[in-house]
Amino acid sequence: MDLVRELEQMTRSRGEWLKGSGPESDIVISSRIRLARNLASYPFMSRATEADRQRIQETLKEAILASPDASQCIYIDLEQLDLLDRQLLVERQLISRELAEGKGPRSVVIDRAERFSLMINEEDHLRMTAMASGLNLEEVWQRGNQWDDWIEQKVVYAFDEKLGFLTACPTNVGTGIRVSVMLHLPALVLTRQIEKIFRSLQKLDLAVRGLHGEGSQATGDFYQISNQATLGLSEQEIMKRLGDIIPVIIDYERKARELLVRENPQNLHDRISRAFGILRTAQTISSEETMHLLSSVRMGVHLGLIHEIGIPKVNELFLQTQPAHLQKIAGAELDSTDRDIERARFLRRCLNKEEGAESSQGPSSSG
Amino acid sequence: MDLVRELEQMTRSRGEWLKGSGPESDIVISSRIRLARNLASYPFMSRATEADRQRIQETLKEAILASPDASQCIYIDLEQLDLLDRQLLVERQLISRELAEGKGPRSVVIDRAERFSLMINEEDHLRMTAMASGLNLEEVWQRGNQWDDWIEQKVVYAFDEKLGFLTACPTNVGTGIRVSVMLHLPALVLTRQIEKIFRSLQKLDLAVRGLHGEGSQATGDFYQISNQATLGLSEQEIMKRLGDIIPVIIDYERKARELLVRENPQNLHDRISRAFGILRTAQTISSEETMHLLSSVRMGVHLGLIHEIGIPKVNELFLQTQPAHLQKIAGAELDSTDRDIERARFLRRCLNKEEGAESSQGPSSSG
Repeated sequence: MDLVRELEQMTRSRGEWLKGSGPESDIVISSRIRLARNLASYPFMSRATEADRQRIQETLKEAILASPDASQCIYIDLEQLDLLDRQLLVERQLISRELAEGKGPRSVVIDRAERFSLMINEEDHLRMTAMASGLNLEEVWQRGNQWDDWIEQKVVYAFDEKLGFLTACPTNVGTGIRVSVMLHLPALVLTRQIEKIFRSLQKLDLAVRGLHGEGSQATGDFYQISNQATLGLSEQEIMKRLGDIIPVIIDYERKARELLVRENPQNLHDRISRAFGILRTAQTISSEETMHLLSSVRMGVHLGLIHEIGIPKVNELFLQTQPAHLQKIAGAELDSTDRDIERARFLRRCLNKEEGAESSQGPSSSG
Repeated sequence: MDLVRELEQMTRSRGEWLKGSGPESDIVISSRIRLARNLASYPFMSRATEADRQRIQETLKEAILASPDASQCIYIDLEQLDLLDRQLLVERQLISRELAEGKGPRSVVIDRAERFSLMINEEDHLRMTAMASGLNLEEVWQRGNQWDDWIEQKVVYAFDEKLGFLTACPTNVGTGIRVSVMLHLPALVLTRQIEKIFRSLQKLDLAVRGLHGEGSQATGDFYQISNQATLGLSEQEIMKRLGDIIPVIIDYERKARELLVRENPQNLHDRISRAFGILRTAQTISSEETMHLLSSVRMGVHLGLIHEIGIPKVNELFLQTQPAHLQKIAGAELDSTDRDIERARFLRRCLNKEEGAESSQGPSSSG
């Protein structure tokens, strides 16, 4: 299959991280592990010449495509990819914004099921990410490790006996590992407990970020929680620290949802029901408002207050209403105003279709 | 039919003034004329004894029930009517708040079609009101006049050759006539032209009031426009003044709607469509928000942006979602919180039923 068709198919599919399955998937969207690695025989990115970067890319591409999983892999040269497709990969969390917006030789290898993404020439020579739906640190750990081992057989990593893996940024030196979990915490936001919890996490040296990583806003009540430091901690310690704290946060969110249901069920139901109503009737809607309303709907489905739609569909809408996805699906580049109109049309179509599947004849779209 | 059943049936019907028919009914809800009259042989209300009021009531009741229209009449003794039913009559604009909340002998005669209402012992001994849907000053003028003539054959009105009809409040002396038109002006509100228009009307000695007359707020973008002075103007002059200005305001509102459609059709459609969406999904909703949203829906129906519901139904909802109607329909007295929940339930039921009537099977209510 050629790349155009691969990306086309991807746009309309769900992707591993929004599958809505896996343990604790009412609250945990996905688990991810990222390993930062560099080749010993080349300078770090900041000092690498165009020729260095070309050779780094060739070396890593070759190593990756020699792996047992090569048949699942799609190699994507970002220099050859237009802006919209790069944005699409960012929205799917398969590449970072930095890689999308960068210059010079850089690429990514992903698999069709979107369970891993191997970025070449991002901040480090190689950044390997493994993803799984729900709380599944063990699985991503295994998959990340496997790629690390396979590639290490073909190349020599920059490694220091005392410091561990050497990375472009000192915060990644050591294991080069960042373990992160994406949580959906609408009830903690509604009950205004979220700030307090974040302050506690920071004291534990854990970082809290929005949907798209560093510097991004927490839209749709999605939060990424990850380890800050990698130096001085073993891989097991990093895993354990996150593995210990995530169930505590899950428990807080569950208790907050129970509190909302118990204390003011009608207001909660109202908020959720209206959110669904607006998504089904808006004629123009921003990405931010969409995320916000979908977040309420997602909680509503889990609380049994909305029956017309399932979690996989809600998760899919989170992704497909983002700008690049929307434009890919519409088959046209659209400015912000037209995107908002197209987004509303898309939502009405999807949510009425969903409804139509349940009753013998759904109401017609008023668009 | 006994009074309980009469009121029961009324609660579930539409009433003349919200029928949504008649000339210019996209903007003009209803036309009304009110005549203030007093019996020559009794003191004004402020000085009338309980015995006076009793006799005034008897005299007027007898005169009214001797009229040719007596068979259509329902005589209601307000001293015998409980608070909720009195409130119901206020919401239907058949009696004033003052009459509902007053003390002592007082009553009202209405007809089943709600085309007239004759209040006894309100501010004046007799206040006759005739109503019609749409812009129909001639019709209400004829009907009001007819009642005036019929009653004048049986009683002697307080009348002064120089001043005209004498009334409790000097502002009504002369013809004792107030002509008023209820307008729905959502586009003038949205385009912020309404204040300017009201200032002009005041200069023309016309009064602007909310849905429920003097001192009431303009909920749902409804405005009552009426003559201020009655002294020194003939009945024809009062009629002509209002008859001349109303078409001008109608024209302003039409132009404002056209402007909204032309300048930002998507935002207008969005506002209207969301309003409808919220009314169909809310789980708790105040009377004020309901009026506000129904106002958008009403404009949407007239602009052809909403097809699932017709104007008579929208008008009916304006009435039936008001507190007393809601409680009568629910068959229970409800506090404010429970009313908001019941109102949302009622709206979902009505709007889904309406929808269900058009498709072979509507979606089930999520309540």
